[in-house]
Amino acid sequence: MPVLVMKFGGTSVATLDRIRRAAKRVGIEVAKGYDVIVIVSAMAGKTNELVGWVNETSPFYDAREYDAVVSSGENVTAGLMALTLQEMEVPARSWQGWQVPLRTTSAHSAARIEEIPPDNILQKFDEGMRVAVVAGFQGISPEGRITTLGRGGSDTTAVAFAAAFDAERCDIYTDVDGVYTTDPRVCEKARKLDRIAFEEMLELASLGAKVLQTRSVELAMRYNVKLRVLSSFEEPSDEAGTLVCGEDQIMESNVVSGVAFSRDEAKVTIVTVADRPGIAATIFGTLSEAGVNVDMIVQNVSESDYHGHEGKVTDMTFSCPVDQLKRAEKALETAREAGGLAFERLETQTDVAKVSVVGIGMRSQSGVAARMFQTLAQEGINIKVIATSEIKISVLVDRKYMELAVQALHDAFELEKA
Amino acid sequence: MPVLVMKFGGTSVATLDRIRRAAKRVGIEVAKGYDVIVIVSAMAGKTNELVGWVNETSPFYDAREYDAVVSSGENVTAGLMALTLQEMEVPARSWQGWQVPLRTTSAHSAARIEEIPPDNILQKFDEGMRVAVVAGFQGISPEGRITTLGRGGSDTTAVAFAAAFDAERCDIYTDVDGVYTTDPRVCEKARKLDRIAFEEMLELASLGAKVLQTRSVELAMRYNVKLRVLSSFEEPSDEAGTLVCGEDQIMESNVVSGVAFSRDEAKVTIVTVADRPGIAATIFGTLSEAGVNVDMIVQNVSESDYHGHEGKVTDMTFSCPVDQLKRAEKALETAREAGGLAFERLETQTDVAKVSVVGIGMRSQSGVAARMFQTLAQEGINIKVIATSEIKISVLVDRKYMELAVQALHDAFELEKA
Repeated sequence: MPVLVMKFGGTSVATLDRIRRAAKRVGIEVAKGYDVIVIVSAMAGKTNELVGWVNETSPFYDAREYDAVVSSGENVTAGLMALTLQEMEVPARSWQGWQVPLRTTSAHSAARIEEIPPDNILQKFDEGMRVAVVAGFQGISPEGRITTLGRGGSDTTAVAFAAAFDAERCDIYTDVDGVYTTDPRVCEKARKLDRIAFEEMLELASLGAKVLQTRSVELAMRYNVKLRVLSSFEEPSDEAGTLVCGEDQIMESNVVSGVAFSRDEAKVTIVTVADRPGIAATIFGTLSEAGVNVDMIVQNVSESDYHGHEGKVTDMTFSCPVDQLKRAEKALETAREAGGLAFERLETQTDVAKVSVVGIGMRSQSGVAARMFQTLAQEGINIKVIATSEIKISVLVDRKYMELAVQALHDAFELEKA
Repeated sequence: MPVLVMKFGGTSVATLDRIRRAAKRVGIEVAKGYDVIVIVSAMAGKTNELVGWVNETSPFYDAREYDAVVSSGENVTAGLMALTLQEMEVPARSWQGWQVPLRTTSAHSAARIEEIPPDNILQKFDEGMRVAVVAGFQGISPEGRITTLGRGGSDTTAVAFAAAFDAERCDIYTDVDGVYTTDPRVCEKARKLDRIAFEEMLELASLGAKVLQTRSVELAMRYNVKLRVLSSFEEPSDEAGTLVCGEDQIMESNVVSGVAFSRDEAKVTIVTVADRPGIAATIFGTLSEAGVNVDMIVQNVSESDYHGHEGKVTDMTFSCPVDQLKRAEKALETAREAGGLAFERLETQTDVAKVSVVGIGMRSQSGVAARMFQTLAQEGINIKVIATSEIKISVLVDRKYMELAVQALHDAFELEKA
């Protein structure tokens, strides 16, 4: 029988009543003829409780013990879900990560999945079991200890199972009903997308549309796993949610699929840097070592005798999360004092936001950037930094214009139309 | 290095603060030179919460899923205890039942321990680890599924580890400071015993002095594991608590070690039963099938032409827990209607209590029964049923005399004196 993977997040299994509701959805898919692998998170709040205890016990904890404690939340839900399905007369049993076994690296609290041998579960399917309920977010290390995959690891678990079992689809049940062209709280014309390409989803996820963990989308893209994001609080239907899939499965698409944004950006300009080969590597190596996640990078000017200085000099601008700004400044000043980096001064700005348009159609369509810049100009919004990739154009603007920019771009690219 | 097993019950690990206090005691034993195996229960209340969820989900639950859910409470405590010890710079790690592995039968929720291979933990001790924290109450079945040993299974886990590792002692930390000659709430002269023999402890435990699970005492007796019961809320000392050990380790003891009692008894007399061979087997077979735990049994009279009946007849009296009385009556009446058992009527009494004196000294000393009956007679307490074993004499009395009987016997056998 074809295999379907269904994943239920913490809010979807927060109470026994919600577990029952989720189990009913599983029952519907079983009735359709699927063998189902259900991946469950801990009941909402439970993981935070456990993490809190670990932090209070040991601020610099042994990650192996952290994993042993924190993984217990998913085990509880897995057992309760199996019992609920059994009550509905659906043959089901639970598996903990080590029982599957879901083999991972030894990088505790951030382990990567290495292998999921499907034999045990397939044998049970052969014997008439219809649902394997698997505790998400956890696995077993080569040393036989419990590992966790880090926050959001349950999505990744689900996709990895879908790949290992060659599942027809991986349905991620969550508390939103799909992926939108932009955040409906910022733009009321935002429209739910029926389909979106993996690459677009990756750009949207990393830009702040936090529906799916980036890592799970990357994995789905690599193994070409069809992912569906849908709400566990809506009536079930085949058209529910958003399908995240390969480009080849999207017949027609708009040039731009969505407008993403991020409020918490800071802009740093390193003024008058001596422009010698390797200077960018020095700057961004320094920032990386300090744990600063640099996003956009622009080298504004590069000419000799600039600002009256001798030799070649340049200005270098980058953006980073606003809460990393202090760290970035300190790292750069320290490098200057140590003599590894020469510049005149740092100019920082914290009241900026990033707005991006994303779409795989850009690859074949020209003029997207021009239309974007024109739209912003018509609204009187000044662009501070521009960065582009194959399927994304991002700009940094004053934060006060962020909502306006999102709404204007949503209109300009006609995203309200399917 | 010598191995010590320390077990902490739910109230002793109910909060992070109490876990710290327990860890300090472990640290003291490590400093003395012991390698320590710590067995932990779930934080007080957690197991009940999990059991509640299972019962609400599925009244006739799959015991395998019950075990998977309920065992998670101990896993949390084990990880937190290991982290706490690490914070105190005591090299420690946690083990879940399947990691040891603690192998059990497949009798889920009431599994019996089959084997504890000590190799994994001993290897870690060799490498410098000083404390192995093991989640109590759980193991792994031959099918690779999680089992639990039933309520109180953590005590049994501790004793089994002490046997498997040839531990010097097994310390059971609980919320009482030892085993008393009787319940101090009933008799203010009750005295804590320094030592008690396994056999005496078994009689006291099954009679209601609920300090240690009967099963763990049986296991300790079989493997001659020295058990110490002590409070985790007292200052630690070598004299703390009560040592439960073999008779050979008790130099001098009173003839009677303790007075036990049980309030919730019922007495049933089956009046005028045809006395033929096998009649007792029929009666108590019937009761056993109905799940009635019969305690004392007395066949009062057995003679021909009794009560004017022809042939040999008898009266049969037994006691059972008062909440099983209805079941017992129904089972006997049903057997009579089915024709397998002939009797005139049932006489039942629910306002009775059982009082017992227990002591291994009885084996060599005569006159204990006489002194007991005399003491009760002096207080005007009528004895309804008498039952004796090698180290115990029990009587059934009117419940209103129970406290008086306990106090009088405590005085008569001078139990306040060491």
